[in-house]
Amino acid sequence: MNSNVRIVLVRPRNPLNIGAAARAMANFGFSDLVVVKPYPPVWRETVSAVGAEKLVLAAKAVRTLEEAVDDRHLVFGTTTTRRRKLERPLVRLPELPAELRRRRGASRIALVFGPEKTGLSNRHLRQCHCLLTVPTSDDCPSMNLGQAVATCCYELSRGRKDFGRAKAPDAGKLPTSGEIRRLVTNAMEVFDATGYLDFLPAEEREFKLRRMLLGWGLKRHDLALLHGALRFVLKGTKK
Amino acid sequence: MNSNVRIVLVRPRNPLNIGAAARAMANFGFSDLVVVKPYPPVWRETVSAVGAEKLVLAAKAVRTLEEAVDDRHLVFGTTTTRRRKLERPLVRLPELPAELRRRRGASRIALVFGPEKTGLSNRHLRQCHCLLTVPTSDDCPSMNLGQAVATCCYELSRGRKDFGRAKAPDAGKLPTSGEIRRLVTNAMEVFDATGYLDFLPAEEREFKLRRMLLGWGLKRHDLALLHGALRFVLKGTKK
Repeated sequence: MNSNVRIVLVRPRNPLNIGAAARAMANFGFSDLVVVKPYPPVWRETVSAVGAEKLVLAAKAVRTLEEAVDDRHLVFGTTTTRRRKLERPLVRLPELPAELRRRRGASRIALVFGPEKTGLSNRHLRQCHCLLTVPTSDDCPSMNLGQAVATCCYELSRGRKDFGRAKAPDAGKLPTSGEIRRLVTNAMEVFDATGYLDFLPAEEREFKLRRMLLGWGLKRHDLALLHGALRFVLKGTKK
Repeated sequence: MNSNVRIVLVRPRNPLNIGAAARAMANFGFSDLVVVKPYPPVWRETVSAVGAEKLVLAAKAVRTLEEAVDDRHLVFGTTTTRRRKLERPLVRLPELPAELRRRRGASRIALVFGPEKTGLSNRHLRQCHCLLTVPTSDDCPSMNLGQAVATCCYELSRGRKDFGRAKAPDAGKLPTSGEIRRLVTNAMEVFDATGYLDFLPAEEREFKLRRMLLGWGLKRHDLALLHGALRFVLKGTKK
């Protein structure tokens, strides 16, 4: 996803929501925020944009949606789709990345979010190429603004391979086949000494044991613990 | 995804966040919310759970994480993975549905979220089968609690086919091939009358015109408009 993504908030009422949108954008590597006609006391009162302060300072306020999307190739207006006649193509959020691949020429896109209470008006939606909807339950269709922005930003960066990778697990920490084999041998000795499962033929007993140990996904530090437990059992039988 | 999903919040500080988590859960069709050791003034001060009031009233408060996950088959502890030694398998959120399909026996799962400032402690993470991380940017890795819950619930319900489907578009609204053909014929007459594009052979002119009209994805109501425009042009040439 190389799209140059702009998030546009139309007349948000709650200053916390501008900060929440900014933080979600920063979480997922986006930085282009435009706010249409912010209420003056709301604008730049964004106290909760933890880690996204720079993004909020760089955000632009404009007077109209036209200005906010003027340089965009493709504009998505978010909506719950419940009450309106759909006059243009509807994209469900999980299908957005595929839709963007299909329209390869559209390198600069905007996702537009309406005011908290009303959502985008039909007048606003008419300036969008497509409608975008986050699939939600009919029982509670309308999302919180900051959460809707977070969900959309997540979907757009969902395919990124460079986010959230832990370092490769330390190969030294997995037991080798030989180490597992020695554990099986040790356990079989204890089983023999204690008569545990002695109604099974030795071969089958060993097979079941090995299958179980291989299935556990043991780590190396588990081995010492298991060897110790077996030693403990063996000591008990010798008393 | 038939999993019975519980969302567990450990000691959230901000009452708005309990409401935000509840609303996101309701948006995506989940209802089982448990809060571990809530601060007494925080608990049930959840004013912002628009549409999720029932869910909040049904939420349980418990004293320990153990109680919260006691009946679960599989417990995921959310973390940013940045600062900690990973002592158990790490699942990236986009891979969570595949992980659940792989562990088919785990029908009751819990996603556990830590306090806003600190996240889950190692003591809490040790009670989880797996770590779960939302892949985020290194520049701003830590998500807002409500937004993290929303993103996880979105991913879990992302494959649902019954959410957010608009009614099938009205087939009567798409033009038939015959209607497009009549539009092409009409336009060709106007082109002839006005001498528009007359440096091209008629056949190629018609081919280009048809390709363009088919590519536009016209709706039926566009046809009347275009026929009207063509009539208008024709009238102009006859003056």
